[in-house]
Amino acid sequence: MNDVRVGMIGYKFMGKAHSNAYRALPMFFPNVIRPEMKAICGRDERAVEKARLQFGWEYAETDWRKLVDRDDIDLIDISAPSDVHKEIAIAAAAAGKHIFCEKPLALNLADSVEMLSAAEKAGVKHMVGFNYRFAPAVQLAKKLIAEGRIGEIYHYRGLFLQDWIVDPEFPLVWRLQKEIAGSGSHGDLGAHVIDMARFLVGEFQEVIGMSETFVKERPLPGSMVGGETVGDKNAPRGQVTVDDATLFLARFAGGALGSIEATRFAAGHRCTNSFEINGSRGSLKFDFERVNELQVYFTDDAHDVQGFRRVLATDSAHAYSGAWWPPGHSIGYEHTFTHEVYELMLAIAEDRQPSPSFVDGVACQAVLEAVDRSIEERRWVAISELQ
Amino acid sequence: MNDVRVGMIGYKFMGKAHSNAYRALPMFFPNVIRPEMKAICGRDERAVEKARLQFGWEYAETDWRKLVDRDDIDLIDISAPSDVHKEIAIAAAAAGKHIFCEKPLALNLADSVEMLSAAEKAGVKHMVGFNYRFAPAVQLAKKLIAEGRIGEIYHYRGLFLQDWIVDPEFPLVWRLQKEIAGSGSHGDLGAHVIDMARFLVGEFQEVIGMSETFVKERPLPGSMVGGETVGDKNAPRGQVTVDDATLFLARFAGGALGSIEATRFAAGHRCTNSFEINGSRGSLKFDFERVNELQVYFTDDAHDVQGFRRVLATDSAHAYSGAWWPPGHSIGYEHTFTHEVYELMLAIAEDRQPSPSFVDGVACQAVLEAVDRSIEERRWVAISELQ
Amino acid sequence: MNDVRVGMIGYKFMGKAHSNAYRALPMFFPNVIRPEMKAICGRDERAVEKARLQFGWEYAETDWRKLVDRDDIDLIDISAPSDVHKEIAIAAAAAGKHIFCEKPLALNLADSVEMLSAAEKAGVKHMVGFNYRFAPAVQLAKKLIAEGRIGEIYHYRGLFLQDWIVDPEFPLVWRLQKEIAGSGSHGDLGAHVIDMARFLVGEFQEVIGMSETFVKERPLPGSMVGGETVGDKNAPRGQVTVDDATLFLARFAGGALGSIEATRFAAGHRCTNSFEINGSRGSLKFDFERVNELQVYFTDDAHDVQGFRRVLATDSAHAYSGAWWPPGHSIGYEHTFTHEVYELMLAIAEDRQPSPSFVDGVACQAVLEAVDRSIEERRWVAISELQ
Amino acid sequence: MNDVRVGMIGYKFMGKAHSNAYRALPMFFPNVIRPEMKAICGRDERAVEKARLQFGWEYAETDWRKLVDRDDIDLIDISAPSDVHKEIAIAAAAAGKHIFCEKPLALNLADSVEMLSAAEKAGVKHMVGFNYRFAPAVQLAKKLIAEGRIGEIYHYRGLFLQDWIVDPEFPLVWRLQKEIAGSGSHGDLGAHVIDMARFLVGEFQEVIGMSETFVKERPLPGSMVGGETVGDKNAPRGQVTVDDATLFLARFAGGALGSIEATRFAAGHRCTNSFEINGSRGSLKFDFERVNELQVYFTDDAHDVQGFRRVLATDSAHAYSGAWWPPGHSIGYEHTFTHEVYELMLAIAEDRQPSPSFVDGVACQAVLEAVDRSIEERRWVAISELQ
Repeated sequence: MNDVRVGMIGYKFMGKAHSNAYRALPMFFPNVIRPEMKAICGRDERAVEKARLQFGWEYAETDWRKLVDRDDIDLIDISAPSDVHKEIAIAAAAAGKHIFCEKPLALNLADSVEMLSAAEKAGVKHMVGFNYRFAPAVQLAKKLIAEGRIGEIYHYRGLFLQDWIVDPEFPLVWRLQKEIAGSGSHGDLGAHVIDMARFLVGEFQEVIGMSETFVKERPLPGSMVGGETVGDKNAPRGQVTVDDATLFLARFAGGALGSIEATRFAAGHRCTNSFEINGSRGSLKFDFERVNELQVYFTDDAHDVQGFRRVLATDSAHAYSGAWWPPGHSIGYEHTFTHEVYELMLAIAEDRQPSPSFVDGVACQAVLEAVDRSIEERRWVAISELQ
Repeated sequence: MNDVRVGMIGYKFMGKAHSNAYRALPMFFPNVIRPEMKAICGRDERAVEKARLQFGWEYAETDWRKLVDRDDIDLIDISAPSDVHKEIAIAAAAAGKHIFCEKPLALNLADSVEMLSAAEKAGVKHMVGFNYRFAPAVQLAKKLIAEGRIGEIYHYRGLFLQDWIVDPEFPLVWRLQKEIAGSGSHGDLGAHVIDMARFLVGEFQEVIGMSETFVKERPLPGSMVGGETVGDKNAPRGQVTVDDATLFLARFAGGALGSIEATRFAAGHRCTNSFEINGSRGSLKFDFERVNELQVYFTDDAHDVQGFRRVLATDSAHAYSGAWWPPGHSIGYEHTFTHEVYELMLAIAEDRQPSPSFVDGVACQAVLEAVDRSIEERRWVAISELQ
Repeated sequence: MNDVRVGMIGYKFMGKAHSNAYRALPMFFPNVIRPEMKAICGRDERAVEKARLQFGWEYAETDWRKLVDRDDIDLIDISAPSDVHKEIAIAAAAAGKHIFCEKPLALNLADSVEMLSAAEKAGVKHMVGFNYRFAPAVQLAKKLIAEGRIGEIYHYRGLFLQDWIVDPEFPLVWRLQKEIAGSGSHGDLGAHVIDMARFLVGEFQEVIGMSETFVKERPLPGSMVGGETVGDKNAPRGQVTVDDATLFLARFAGGALGSIEATRFAAGHRCTNSFEINGSRGSLKFDFERVNELQVYFTDDAHDVQGFRRVLATDSAHAYSGAWWPPGHSIGYEHTFTHEVYELMLAIAEDRQPSPSFVDGVACQAVLEAVDRSIEERRWVAISELQ
Repeated sequence: MNDVRVGMIGYKFMGKAHSNAYRALPMFFPNVIRPEMKAICGRDERAVEKARLQFGWEYAETDWRKLVDRDDIDLIDISAPSDVHKEIAIAAAAAGKHIFCEKPLALNLADSVEMLSAAEKAGVKHMVGFNYRFAPAVQLAKKLIAEGRIGEIYHYRGLFLQDWIVDPEFPLVWRLQKEIAGSGSHGDLGAHVIDMARFLVGEFQEVIGMSETFVKERPLPGSMVGGETVGDKNAPRGQVTVDDATLFLARFAGGALGSIEATRFAAGHRCTNSFEINGSRGSLKFDFERVNELQVYFTDDAHDVQGFRRVLATDSAHAYSGAWWPPGHSIGYEHTFTHEVYELMLAIAEDRQPSPSFVDGVACQAVLEAVDRSIEERRWVAISELQ
């Protein structure tokens, strides 16, 4: 089978993570079809050329339309900012390219639906970048639930806690401006929690949320010092226009109750993307800061030795672990992308849609918007209202 | 100063916990006024006499009215079921006795307000049994917050998770019947979380909740086997009329966001009464299953060694620890009651109201009812609506 | 059956712990024979009278010989300093009293053997105070081993880590003077680890150790300030004559390998009395700072969910838990003494020796001395050399 | 500056880990000199060609002598079995190539000394593969010690616990045969612990050890099933000729006491490479199973908030973290090799010896052999005896 020739738009954080995944795949998953790192694209010619060299792409482009039109590209990887996802995806679909788009799929539900339609109409493969699904410990959670070993699910508690803007002097970067970022913690972090919940527990039925911007004004960004954005105490200030934190309660179609929170104001939490699931036969706990571990409890353990087990998901019994290192040898964040790309290559080889696809991107967007509406209107909102 | 002569009504779980506290106090806190274990009261003559002997009370009574009328009693301890709290408390106040009442103060807000009025009118001391405040680790949390060391508070996450009725064959005990218990998880467990939040973060402003009874029918209780209530698979079934789980979102008067949950369906959690607090200068985490520990994070720790500290609250720098054992030597659940009784004796000696008093019992009841109303009417309810 | 009338010598730390156990027993274990707190004994008349009142003893004595001779005493409890254990125990035996002696049984092996002989000759019950055996989590470890659920034992790692003398200005208290204390960390902390190992793994065969006194001179103790012993920077200094830390390797008769360490120089460890046991079918981990927990691993768990379980030993399936509070409600340090006294009362009622008895005290002393000899002579020493 | 052209011998576990490091380096550390993956070498032509393709090397060789002689190679990477290290290293030195040799440097001290001499004489760079030094959390430990923030070191406890041969039916693979492997747990795992101790605490002074082979006979290896070596219950058995576990006590030149253990019989421990260090100003704890974390305790923290902090070594304040992902995003095992190769490239660019060099390989070997001698002769052995 032929290699899949990739053209990637974007070369910052996600561009780096995806590039690494494409490079790693042939080495660790040699039996799957290969992604060929054909062209990387960005508007700044010098910067994209630097990234091309550093990440190992064959060509550099500065116009994404040209990239999409190239004959030697099979797959368009959209690692660019969210506000250009839609236009690129629709163009890529029209050009008959497969699409791998970072989350959030679009800035709003309507756009994401359009993107899905375009991809479906074009008959191309489409994937959305909910990478956390691909941690082996999360895959284990999925397996235990699917096999009924946790029983009927009663509770889902999902948290995504960060602390990078707790300091009120942290500057007003683009992620804190609604016109660029679309949303704050909710769309950035909450989207991951929503997808995780859908992956593990199933569809949301109704939601009610609350939201807050704790620090309402921040210094405008000063000069970049050493790669870090540093604020200036005397700098003029601007309005923060996104949420610092958004919480919501949810009822799932399957009957479970959900409590979900995304915040950038949880001091001490660098990246706590965690969940706990309680079912009729057991419970599961996961925290991304200990990405290789899943805590597992079974109600039918012998009476005198009941307790949460700390399972290190690096054994041969665990997903993907055979590709990496011996039991007990940790993998990390970047590996979730490698597994994601593995799924994408498998799907292309097997001529099926990858999972998660744009369908999941749309479903996540619907929940995000239902929460937004519930906050605005101060009432419970059914997901079905948005469809 | 004279001893405080106690008459206690109730001799089951709480009666045992309180008796132990009265016995322990003179030994571990010898410098405070002594509680004298004068009389214990219950309706079953044989059972109350057995309890008298086991717990070490001087007299036994079977009629609480007689107990309240005794001249040799200064303090009435109400460890009886919730549905009799009001009548006893009002009678005790009328008789000029101090009152120590277990939580929940009453079955509803109106009753609790009446009780507070009666106690205030009579000019007696009144205390409500929110014992978890008195864990040294919780006292440390309070101190750190009061001293501003956590800064302005942004988030409060409170959970009370148990799992004793996950088994659908567990019988329909009185705690699962609304007419007797008043409420399920919400009033039993949620009340503790609400009080803890008020103690640490301050007053609630508005709430919205959701609630569920996962197992709607259960076998009627069979015979008691070996002290445990065991269900019979073929027994006739009855309706569960209380909530198995109740969750709510909250906004605090001080601006913090709260997420609170009480459930008896969290497999693997025997008694997880936990909170996390995130502030502008740090964070705190507590879990009652590790009652001696507080996790503490400060934003101003040196950059290379920032992280949650596991503080074992058994040092001389911690509340009450001087009374017990050397650093590192754990105390447990029962000690929270000893500290509670210590506060009560101190308050009597100093002629001031103890804390928490009936005022706190009333405030907690208001939040409980606001949540109930928010569930019924599917909308945000301000606490002020109930006052 | 008659109550057991107790006469206790000593009223400091251990006297307080034992008094609490005697007081608690009838309340929490009402079905066993009762200890009657008859007389407490100490040399300082005012102090012992104060302790009598605080702890709840009937009489006070200032001469232990008189106590031993009293007709109304059945059991002598030796909570006095180690250097008087032997004389009292032998006198008590001669007077036909049962004996409950704190650890270490004596200052050396020869003395402890004499004590055992005296007790055996007199036909009285004899117990030594290795209280840590009586934590429910430790009892669970014992049960799992006894039932073969951990299989053949390969490794025992026992640590007792404290940090109360890390500060070099901490004064030269009596525990740091050989003539009074007999030994430092080794006899004080190591003795507990040795007994725990014997209890769980069986007899020691041979040992080799090393030892160090890190801070060789300390200020002579100044005045006592607020109950704490505080050193004076300008105070004259004296020699520390005991070990700050002692480590040893061991081979057990059953074939297991042991690594044992006792130190007072482990900053951050208030009271880490911990062990790990690895066997052919599983592993166990315990840390006294989390006294209610046992970590348990089984090799035959399903392949995808293998991991250490955190068992909270507060369920009805666990030793003693029925006497206390519901599952998940912690008990603490002092409860180990209540369980110990429970065993003592049971043994008296059943006319058998309690466990641990002086036999265990002697065996522990033999290991302690074998380690001492191995350090002095820089060679492996078989326990049998000392017998 | 020119790229460093690498020729690597070996393509199994270590070959894969090193290949990944060479590939990752230019992407994550673009500012250092580049390793060029020139040629990979192994005896099995088909297998080495497969590895070449999978790992991304330019050429394949089947004769390491040819590789060493190639003009287009600057650095020889020895990832082959231990018994051929010496011959290759000496040849490489003679050919003027830099050498990067996996640990253990050689099968014995004498050989390792010869290798060091050869490299020094040739004036080439030499590095030994103690990769665990390069975890950011370990680098943080080193930094805290170097800056005096832990004070004078009193205790070092190092453990390397695995469990892959607990099953007595696990077959007699080459690692369990002395003639091939040289040593068992001691040389394989203990070597890492020894190097870590030297890195953090300094030189060993004297040691005494003990050793055991718990399962003395095992089935001869059967056919390979699915990549795993599976034993056959009826297969003929052979003798295990290496240690299953080796423990030793140590005294460091700086005065600290050490306790070190390596075992493959610790059920539940997939790869617990851990240490704890106690000093006069604080303590440190590390466990490789949570490779991103360091537990840190300071004696001078405020009295009421003393406790071990869990530091996630992924902040910008931590070594190497700038190269990878944002704070809280874990890296894993393989990254230690990338950092190791980074140090090697830096050293070549700066024309200095990398650290750890063969000098460290020799020093580690001396400790290993001193322990062996101490076991054989049942006495304390000074490291100086071997020099």
